[in-house]
Amino acid sequence: MANEIIVIGSGAAGMSAASAAKSKCPEAKVTVFTEDEDVAYSPCAIPWGIEGKIPWEGLVMHTPEFYAKERGIDIHTRTTVESVDDESKTVTAGGAQYHYDSLVIATGGKVFVPPISGANLKNVFVVRTVRDGKNIQAALKDATRVVIGGAGVIGLELAVAFKEMGKEVTVVEMMDQVIPRIADRDMADVIQKDLEGRGIRFVMKAPLQSVNGQDKVESVSAAGETIPCDVVIFATGVRANLEIPKALGLDIGHLNAVIASPTMNPYRRGRLVPDIFVAGDLVQCSSAVMPGATMSQLGSTAVKQGMIAGTNAVCKDKVLFGEVASPWVSCIGDNQIAGTGLSKGLASWYGIDVAEGKAEGTTRARYYPGGLPYRVKLLADRTSHRIVGGQIVAGEGATGRIEWITMAVVCGMTAEDFLVKAETAYCPPTSMVRDPVLWAAEDLIKNLKQ
Amino acid sequence: MANEIIVIGSGAAGMSAASAAKSKCPEAKVTVFTEDEDVAYSPCAIPWGIEGKIPWEGLVMHTPEFYAKERGIDIHTRTTVESVDDESKTVTAGGAQYHYDSLVIATGGKVFVPPISGANLKNVFVVRTVRDGKNIQAALKDATRVVIGGAGVIGLELAVAFKEMGKEVTVVEMMDQVIPRIADRDMADVIQKDLEGRGIRFVMKAPLQSVNGQDKVESVSAAGETIPCDVVIFATGVRANLEIPKALGLDIGHLNAVIASPTMNPYRRGRLVPDIFVAGDLVQCSSAVMPGATMSQLGSTAVKQGMIAGTNAVCKDKVLFGEVASPWVSCIGDNQIAGTGLSKGLASWYGIDVAEGKAEGTTRARYYPGGLPYRVKLLADRTSHRIVGGQIVAGEGATGRIEWITMAVVCGMTAEDFLVKAETAYCPPTSMVRDPVLWAAEDLIKNLKQ
Repeated sequence: MANEIIVIGSGAAGMSAASAAKSKCPEAKVTVFTEDEDVAYSPCAIPWGIEGKIPWEGLVMHTPEFYAKERGIDIHTRTTVESVDDESKTVTAGGAQYHYDSLVIATGGKVFVPPISGANLKNVFVVRTVRDGKNIQAALKDATRVVIGGAGVIGLELAVAFKEMGKEVTVVEMMDQVIPRIADRDMADVIQKDLEGRGIRFVMKAPLQSVNGQDKVESVSAAGETIPCDVVIFATGVRANLEIPKALGLDIGHLNAVIASPTMNPYRRGRLVPDIFVAGDLVQCSSAVMPGATMSQLGSTAVKQGMIAGTNAVCKDKVLFGEVASPWVSCIGDNQIAGTGLSKGLASWYGIDVAEGKAEGTTRARYYPGGLPYRVKLLADRTSHRIVGGQIVAGEGATGRIEWITMAVVCGMTAEDFLVKAETAYCPPTSMVRDPVLWAAEDLIKNLKQ
Repeated sequence: MANEIIVIGSGAAGMSAASAAKSKCPEAKVTVFTEDEDVAYSPCAIPWGIEGKIPWEGLVMHTPEFYAKERGIDIHTRTTVESVDDESKTVTAGGAQYHYDSLVIATGGKVFVPPISGANLKNVFVVRTVRDGKNIQAALKDATRVVIGGAGVIGLELAVAFKEMGKEVTVVEMMDQVIPRIADRDMADVIQKDLEGRGIRFVMKAPLQSVNGQDKVESVSAAGETIPCDVVIFATGVRANLEIPKALGLDIGHLNAVIASPTMNPYRRGRLVPDIFVAGDLVQCSSAVMPGATMSQLGSTAVKQGMIAGTNAVCKDKVLFGEVASPWVSCIGDNQIAGTGLSKGLASWYGIDVAEGKAEGTTRARYYPGGLPYRVKLLADRTSHRIVGGQIVAGEGATGRIEWITMAVVCGMTAEDFLVKAETAYCPPTSMVRDPVLWAAEDLIKNLKQ
């Protein structure tokens, strides 16, 4: 039984691992090292923190003092792990050495900032930590014009928050649609149109070429245009932090993340490393939809992997991590947009042809007050007719429904089987008597025949 | 190809059948007979119609004139089908004879009124048709005290509506919990407590013994008590209308409803009857959870069966009805309560032992404003560890999540497999980073080991 557990990283994965280890094995000594000053917060909540909808204190679930006192977990904040020696099973951090029986590496990812000039100017930010959020909030006090690089869900959530704060907001996106990769263009366009209606400007097919200014940001260049601005935010995707895994010689997959077993152990030259565990944004996952690797990098995945890593770090009674369809949801303006499994873009990355089925309805019975628009699509592989993904844009109720579609994807249901087996719960204030997902399945089956 | 289609019944099943038949085969002649004066409305919406939240005109989706003009469907309202002769394939209705190639019987059910004295007094009602709703609304104008017989979801939705209208409301229930049979006591108690807090009175373990009064209701007797009242509503469950199926000699199952094939054809002495179809509340279904028969009697099931019956009535390219887990949801006061598959009560009807797993959380991230309480339980068969049911009581978001659990039930997932495979979509305004369903699954696995 492992008694000394070291966790590197204090995000969703790291703190879930630490808490699970201590909860399954109360006599274990659990120590967390983190470069961050805050622990156990949700980076996904930062847009609402900046806007002031959530107080920063509320956003941080627990303090290091809480963990020490209530859970018996020792957290070293603002502490860099200098090295790990897995022969002697020691971690060197803040100049001291610490022994471990099991080590959990949950160092997450960092925002990818494109290598362009001016990216290190004052008032250029990424959004990853509470400190980032507070710094952006402070900088916005004297700012009127904000440019966001990247029209992914975080970029768009931020765009709405800044607009609500009265700023002029321009979103610059390299691709030709918002929420590229995980959302299809028709669903993404609903969101973009709504945000344009709120006065947010989009510059599409425009990689950021440079950030310009003397000692602080004055403009950005994109698509041959110079866009004046006071603040720039990079919301350009997350890359795994691989310093420690690479120093330990752990196997890195072709998506540039750590390969892990279902028990969340890494490998070294193809061999499982039993006393090291990995969890969170630095892990390469297996797809539940198509054979092969995929990245998940979701908070929900990080928590799940963290709990599994922490449990297996102390218990002989192991728990397993499965494959991922990676359902996601984002609240952008008046819409919720959600997806699961493959989008058309992701399907083409797997080389497969998909058919789609679409439907539109309302989130409540048509005659019930307060119903909101509800669009849904399902995608199926043309060869097997298996449902491989789904997307929803709706005013409410997207989360549970995307989890429902996820279960159908993960169980490998064909479109035809889904239409026979799917049942929906009806009450006028919460649903239509026939949920639009079922209409989408009908449309999908029709299109699969063509 | 069948060209003359007759549908008996104009509820969700009947109108779905008529519309599907006409849509798949535009040249077919589709005729509907109904005793009702309105068609194509949702009986589930009547409580909100009585309260005035939905205008009666809005609640009726389409008029007979709309069906005639827009869909080419001929509807005979207030018309009783006197007989069906399936030798000559004719229906006699309103004194005239009509030929059919395919007949759809969708005559639904009627509210069971216990055989007690006074049940036919003035101001005693059931809730099934728009006419019932309008009559109740009219009677309530001069009423201050209402007794509802039956604490199922319709009874409780009505209780809240009447209370909102300023009435004194007493619910009389034969069993010792509200929403008996389909909800477990702990979940049902949350609802009862909320309604008691609103001033609704409950008299439990009390079958209605009599309705008392001279020419109209003055009181009811239950549990040895005399409860004065001006209006009585029976919300005491629905029994299948079997007059026509019995006259045709169709096979009736042990749950006193019509046995149907997956194509929605009935049987006669064990032989499929190919030119007759059945759909809706009069059909006995097969359970998706346990081998054997079950009743569904949900609007969503009626629509699905109706569409299948109507399609197969005209098409060689058949579609199939599957087994049912019968997910349901109801909005009662500030709570949504939803369930799927087996409750503990239904499990005991199958003779099986279940373990349960429970969790409580909030409908949004804990720190996000507006989050509401969210309780969930999962039930699994102790022998196979298969998830056989789930229930949710939450302030919002119950519908999609119960559909998600339904998919797991229908796919036959064990609790252990569910915990490995289930993924949830996270965004602070719509969900916790780890959905309480996953905590319930952990609790369930722990309890299955005991």
